[in-house]
Amino acid sequence: MRADAAPSFILIPELPDPGGRVTLDAEESHYLLRVCRVRPGDRVSGTDGRGALATLRVIESGARAEVEVEACLRAQRTRTAWVLAGAPEGERGDWLVEKLAELGVGIFQPIHCERGRWEKTEARMERWRRLAVAALRQSRRRHLMDLRSPVSLDEAMATIPGKAVGFLADPSGAPAASIPPPAAGEAAGLIGPAAGFSETEHVSIKSRGFQSMALADSRLRTETAALAWASWWASGVARD
Amino acid sequence: MRADAAPSFILIPELPDPGGRVTLDAEESHYLLRVCRVRPGDRVSGTDGRGALATLRVIESGARAEVEVEACLRAQRTRTAWVLAGAPEGERGDWLVEKLAELGVGIFQPIHCERGRWEKTEARMERWRRLAVAALRQSRRRHLMDLRSPVSLDEAMATIPGKAVGFLADPSGAPAASIPPPAAGEAAGLIGPAAGFSETEHVSIKSRGFQSMALADSRLRTETAALAWASWWASGVARD
Repeated sequence: MRADAAPSFILIPELPDPGGRVTLDAEESHYLLRVCRVRPGDRVSGTDGRGALATLRVIESGARAEVEVEACLRAQRTRTAWVLAGAPEGERGDWLVEKLAELGVGIFQPIHCERGRWEKTEARMERWRRLAVAALRQSRRRHLMDLRSPVSLDEAMATIPGKAVGFLADPSGAPAASIPPPAAGEAAGLIGPAAGFSETEHVSIKSRGFQSMALADSRLRTETAALAWASWWASGVARD
Repeated sequence: MRADAAPSFILIPELPDPGGRVTLDAEESHYLLRVCRVRPGDRVSGTDGRGALATLRVIESGARAEVEVEACLRAQRTRTAWVLAGAPEGERGDWLVEKLAELGVGIFQPIHCERGRWEKTEARMERWRRLAVAALRQSRRRHLMDLRSPVSLDEAMATIPGKAVGFLADPSGAPAASIPPPAAGEAAGLIGPAAGFSETEHVSIKSRGFQSMALADSRLRTETAALAWASWWASGVARD
């Protein structure tokens, strides 16, 4: 028997306690049975997306797979990243969500700015959720990225915890490589919309103590800056 | 008159010496005349994509814009990044090219690996070039990313300069944040295909002295790892 018959994690939002059994939904069943070809007795790894890492034994492999939870380890996060981002151009939000989820960002908070508003986010939210789930599976993460609905910049800044360290993506700031990513706790990266923040917004951001950091030697598109910030944060690796 | 009437750079591969004039191609003309609505007398910035930064004065604004080179500053790069990447899944190479170009990567070298080959790159090369040009304009860069045709891993490693510092994206390596990005010179980031490098390939990579670095606390898709590596390199900002 293979130690772990599936390369990706199974997402089970309502994960039973050890000894409990659960029938997987169509998508997870398809992945296990058709893609990985698991058999009864095989073991796979699963998560509830809220910190649990479970060893699952496959019981039944009918149209829907049934698994039993053999063991479950629950872990608190030691570091959490928030990304507050203005609207990029076009459909670029989709892959931004996918990439932030892969890199382990905890909360994605779209922000409406003076020079750019997110459009059609209600319609996109379901697709974004699917992309975040796929990234969790693929990257074998035990925390599902929290996708928030767009709010104003001030609301977003008021939402992040008071103890969070805030960073503003700003080509005139200090080079990112000169700033060590926080090894623990909460960090927030703030990225302007395609047309940038207004002067009023800049004043508001500065008054909240956000530190300017340059992510590259030139200006970046909104989604690229958000991703570069998340990469910087992720480079301060702490095993999840 | 505005100091620089166009927010993006104009790409003029055959840039005349100062005093010389040139008629722009249809795409650059459209951008200047329709998008930026420049008028004769306005000044815009341009590059040949090989290190020149030129101040251009608009002379004629007919169907094709004509510009005169007023001044031109040519700069050598002080740091250059190579990205050697195995094939990602599906169409993910397209946005990888766009993002690497935005971040200022110098050379993109796709590599054929035992567990993954790039497909249809001939057909893609023209689209990739357009994406790289758009990124140069958008990010106001004076070097166009060099797009290479796929070669084998060994050929690719033999191509990079001997003095280049090599890094391997590897979840078991040292955290990227613990490694300062080179402030000058050549650096190469090596990223495996979706299915990873084989054992033989790993031996070959190690024998060439590539240093393992972890870009995040979990595994990343090929294109995400390539981008995270480029972000790490770009974070050691040196003005272009």
